[in-house]
Amino acid sequence: MSQHQTLGVAVIGTGRMGADHVRRINDVISGARVAAVADIDADRVRRLADGIDGCTPYTDPAAAMADPGVDAVLIASPGPAHEDALLAAFARDLPVLCEKPLTPDPASALRVVAAETALGHRRVQVGFMRRYDADYLTLKSLLDKGTYGRPLMLHNKHRNADTPPGFSNAMMIHDSVVHEIDVTRWLLDEEITAVQVLRPAPTGHAPEGLGDPQLILFETAGGRVVDTELFVNCRFGYQVSCEAVCEDGTARIGDDRGVFVNAAGHWGGAITPGFVERFEEAYDRQVQRWVDATRRGAVEGPSCWDGYAAAAVCEAGVRAQATGERVAVELAERPALYR
Amino acid sequence: MSQHQTLGVAVIGTGRMGADHVRRINDVISGARVAAVADIDADRVRRLADGIDGCTPYTDPAAAMADPGVDAVLIASPGPAHEDALLAAFARDLPVLCEKPLTPDPASALRVVAAETALGHRRVQVGFMRRYDADYLTLKSLLDKGTYGRPLMLHNKHRNADTPPGFSNAMMIHDSVVHEIDVTRWLLDEEITAVQVLRPAPTGHAPEGLGDPQLILFETAGGRVVDTELFVNCRFGYQVSCEAVCEDGTARIGDDRGVFVNAAGHWGGAITPGFVERFEEAYDRQVQRWVDATRRGAVEGPSCWDGYAAAAVCEAGVRAQATGERVAVELAERPALYR
Amino acid sequence: MSQHQTLGVAVIGTGRMGADHVRRINDVISGARVAAVADIDADRVRRLADGIDGCTPYTDPAAAMADPGVDAVLIASPGPAHEDALLAAFARDLPVLCEKPLTPDPASALRVVAAETALGHRRVQVGFMRRYDADYLTLKSLLDKGTYGRPLMLHNKHRNADTPPGFSNAMMIHDSVVHEIDVTRWLLDEEITAVQVLRPAPTGHAPEGLGDPQLILFETAGGRVVDTELFVNCRFGYQVSCEAVCEDGTARIGDDRGVFVNAAGHWGGAITPGFVERFEEAYDRQVQRWVDATRRGAVEGPSCWDGYAAAAVCEAGVRAQATGERVAVELAERPALYR
Amino acid sequence: MSQHQTLGVAVIGTGRMGADHVRRINDVISGARVAAVADIDADRVRRLADGIDGCTPYTDPAAAMADPGVDAVLIASPGPAHEDALLAAFARDLPVLCEKPLTPDPASALRVVAAETALGHRRVQVGFMRRYDADYLTLKSLLDKGTYGRPLMLHNKHRNADTPPGFSNAMMIHDSVVHEIDVTRWLLDEEITAVQVLRPAPTGHAPEGLGDPQLILFETAGGRVVDTELFVNCRFGYQVSCEAVCEDGTARIGDDRGVFVNAAGHWGGAITPGFVERFEEAYDRQVQRWVDATRRGAVEGPSCWDGYAAAAVCEAGVRAQATGERVAVELAERPALYR
Repeated sequence: MSQHQTLGVAVIGTGRMGADHVRRINDVISGARVAAVADIDADRVRRLADGIDGCTPYTDPAAAMADPGVDAVLIASPGPAHEDALLAAFARDLPVLCEKPLTPDPASALRVVAAETALGHRRVQVGFMRRYDADYLTLKSLLDKGTYGRPLMLHNKHRNADTPPGFSNAMMIHDSVVHEIDVTRWLLDEEITAVQVLRPAPTGHAPEGLGDPQLILFETAGGRVVDTELFVNCRFGYQVSCEAVCEDGTARIGDDRGVFVNAAGHWGGAITPGFVERFEEAYDRQVQRWVDATRRGAVEGPSCWDGYAAAAVCEAGVRAQATGERVAVELAERPALYR
Repeated sequence: MSQHQTLGVAVIGTGRMGADHVRRINDVISGARVAAVADIDADRVRRLADGIDGCTPYTDPAAAMADPGVDAVLIASPGPAHEDALLAAFARDLPVLCEKPLTPDPASALRVVAAETALGHRRVQVGFMRRYDADYLTLKSLLDKGTYGRPLMLHNKHRNADTPPGFSNAMMIHDSVVHEIDVTRWLLDEEITAVQVLRPAPTGHAPEGLGDPQLILFETAGGRVVDTELFVNCRFGYQVSCEAVCEDGTARIGDDRGVFVNAAGHWGGAITPGFVERFEEAYDRQVQRWVDATRRGAVEGPSCWDGYAAAAVCEAGVRAQATGERVAVELAERPALYR
Repeated sequence: MSQHQTLGVAVIGTGRMGADHVRRINDVISGARVAAVADIDADRVRRLADGIDGCTPYTDPAAAMADPGVDAVLIASPGPAHEDALLAAFARDLPVLCEKPLTPDPASALRVVAAETALGHRRVQVGFMRRYDADYLTLKSLLDKGTYGRPLMLHNKHRNADTPPGFSNAMMIHDSVVHEIDVTRWLLDEEITAVQVLRPAPTGHAPEGLGDPQLILFETAGGRVVDTELFVNCRFGYQVSCEAVCEDGTARIGDDRGVFVNAAGHWGGAITPGFVERFEEAYDRQVQRWVDATRRGAVEGPSCWDGYAAAAVCEAGVRAQATGERVAVELAERPALYR
Repeated sequence: MSQHQTLGVAVIGTGRMGADHVRRINDVISGARVAAVADIDADRVRRLADGIDGCTPYTDPAAAMADPGVDAVLIASPGPAHEDALLAAFARDLPVLCEKPLTPDPASALRVVAAETALGHRRVQVGFMRRYDADYLTLKSLLDKGTYGRPLMLHNKHRNADTPPGFSNAMMIHDSVVHEIDVTRWLLDEEITAVQVLRPAPTGHAPEGLGDPQLILFETAGGRVVDTELFVNCRFGYQVSCEAVCEDGTARIGDDRGVFVNAAGHWGGAITPGFVERFEEAYDRQVQRWVDATRRGAVEGPSCWDGYAAAAVCEAGVRAQATGERVAVELAERPALYR
């Protein structure tokens, strides 16, 4: 499409993430509009479409993609529905921004990789939005330039105030650590080859059965070691930090920000209450970059291969968590499309 | 206009600031487009318009405002041209975002105030973009909520790496301190009543004749004291900070941000190189808020009165700078429109 | 005396400061012992001496100085008693560590200066203990080396949680700002030539009649400008900071220290509750340096001239506080002994 | 001895650490003096004793301890000589401050434990001087009070600018990690039960064969997990930090201190160049506490059991380093003397 046309987007899935993307495209993103929305909940999707000029509601994702005003697809349905939606988009050769996970497991992710490879060109950007966070972007740039020499280790901290009901040990890997999996692969530009999980005696604030906190260890193809403290009932707020230990120095993001206060016997500031406040700009930047690239006819950002690799490491991580042993990660051969 | 229509903007003045606003409206701002551009340099304005779908070039600001696609005006021409442009916009009752200064001196600013008052409703948002910076917004919110009690003093620091050729003592007030003038009035929600300027022995890095640094002191109607260190050849980077000293605590913004580094015998991070990096998001947010309000038919943000008050304090500041004495600020009576 | 002998000290005054110095010399300081104590309260001084091997109690300072075991004198009596005690020590040519103030006013301080000058050599070290604080020592060293170029301005903050009953506006200068007076003269190595005091509307937490906070402005002989926020009912703790603004950079001490905490929605740490915690090591270092110098036969540290200059600036400061005007500081000619 | 007598100390070993302790006792420590020094280098020990009043040189440690002026012993000879020196001190029932390690291996350390147990009372304080560092003391106090709830994990960083010639992988455990071993046991008040060592691809700045950095993992009897980044050729300075992750918050020491600078495009401060600057006060406090306790007839601080436990964990650590596997730590039964 011409760079001067407004991009018509079909949003698939209108739950919390999907509805937020609809708002973002309408109110924040320049150069795009929501042309179609799809959800199995017919009432919800009709009410949503009613509030938007020129937006048609659908219950079938493929039908939404066939809408004549649609130039691109944003998939925000539950993970198990992603594979079908992606294949439907591939059938129409439409550019896709697919929320993480690409699909819930390595086998299905690999099928998506194969389908996109068969298509012969990249169509999918996966929603690993930390790659669009200003701090992570600065850290990535420092590592790529080698400002402080080669990276040797990463120390990650991933802390949430608390967990929603039903949060499980497996979700600690699939929903939380998956971000550190992608950050590790992206910052170091190499695959993760082994995972180990240490489980200290849990906090009394965690629900029965949840091993919280955990210490997750990655080894990478280049022999780097990455540790991640995951602590999802830390109570004091939301905190995501990453320190790259390099040959000539270390660089850390995510610790302190905002207003510095002296009051009531204490110096410091407020801790970010949640991921929305911390990563709101990254979400905006992610969609804006996707709209811009799509209008230029390009596909950039996290690929299906990145989605597959994350799924494979998650699978190994869940096993490592259960056994306490080091679990090697086995990846399929990387198609030329993603090299 | 309907909230669903795209806002057609006439950009008056296409120098550095004007051209940057054109880019912003095209690429960043949702819900607006550049419908007309005006500049006395006919070649420049034609080249600029050529690259934008549906944008017409003009050499006369009033003609640009009369373009049928124009719903609103952004004035980015040199300060002395602002009064005429504002009156032209008032003649058509168009909403205006006017770059600071409103006009270069209190007398002309007061004429604009009178013209808008005669119009009977606010049309102008003045471009004091610090009011849209995330940190300043947080500080304003803390003060408004009284989180740390009543504010007693403000300590500002305003540091630039260096100054462009021709930068004068008067420009230190009109172009630099004017931001602290607006921030003081906005954060404390009261007028400045006196100004004093202390001039230490200057740095050897300042051009001959420039008294750099200076310490500027404000008194406010409520008896608060505000000091501002202005140091525009500090060499180390760009740094804007504000500490509010309140009855139960202090809150400071603007000190440290971004990546924390250990390297070469030093801990810390990079200092922001300039105001673009520091306030880019504030510029975006300023224009976005103006577009959103305009599409709703509202006028918000810094008013003509704010522009006039800044001009009056600047005039007193330049006298205080020359004499070393405390100079009282005399303001006209505030029209009901701005109460 | 030989450097290998233990220094016998007469402590004059056994109130809070005096008793603390007795403890310090006994338990902390290497190479010294308390040989005599003097206080007008005969009971108190006898009880104190009873607990110390070879220590004799006196009610007359001169008699204590005449004790055969006494090699040096530490004066910790109330300020009005300092002149007599100093002259008694001069009569015996004994080295003296004299708590601040040297004397309470410039006229008496100048008499002490004259008496020591008549003696022909320095005997007195004045108790400006910030000169022995590790952070201030580092800052002084950076300024002396010119690491960041010539200093242009100093920004001081001097904050106390609250004030004892009876604390007056004059005491804000004489007891609190006197430290910034000495720090300014010492760090910049030049005299203060004018004082101005701005008095914002006071905090509701200050006792009736106390103008708290205040902004104190100094000009120095070299044309530097120094501002000090004095806020003695800030409630949140004790905080003393100093930022030197130099031609090529700024250096600040006193802001954040100790343990960094994430808890209860807040990052940061505990604010020092009082000056004892903040400057305990400086007090120890001050006395240790004095003992060491005395055993070598040397006199170092803040001199009678420093005590006199502080008294003169305090006097000007109290006038400036009352008038709101700039008050010039007039100093006597500096004797060669102190050049 | 009476608390009012000066403690006569025999210093065994006059290499770098021993000579530094001699200086400390003479110049810094109140209430102690060096009465005897012992070293196999007869010339060196004679020259050292010549400069100290009433100090006798010896080449035999036992003979030095028999000197009539000796009340206590400070052992600073090489580790392999410690066992004999300790047994000689036990034979005379003298209080001992023994530099770390207690002895070089668990078997010999256990013999010392048995000998002191046979004596029936504690005589030895082991030189784990971090327990006397102001920051660690504050952290210990926070954990003991449970200010932020129960501790769950510790994250340690131990960074040196570079290593001396001959520094080996085993020395990384025995000379560096031994401090984190003691800190872990002391802060958490429980034994270490397993060790694992991860070895990332080494920095190019490490000597051939040195696996630098390493990530060392401890499990404790209470199920806590402790990780330590050891990076001894980090080039940028000396940095020792510890973050305790507790149920209701985290507390970190050792990150940023001292002067805060803005200069040359960078905010931050100087990194401590080495352990002397970082821990000088801890060394002083360690010896002062030992002198004070000894003069009261008490024995406090790290015990022979602490020395033995460190030796046992070091031995396991060296095996873990070589195998990459988790190695369980087996401790002897703890004698009642150390409970």
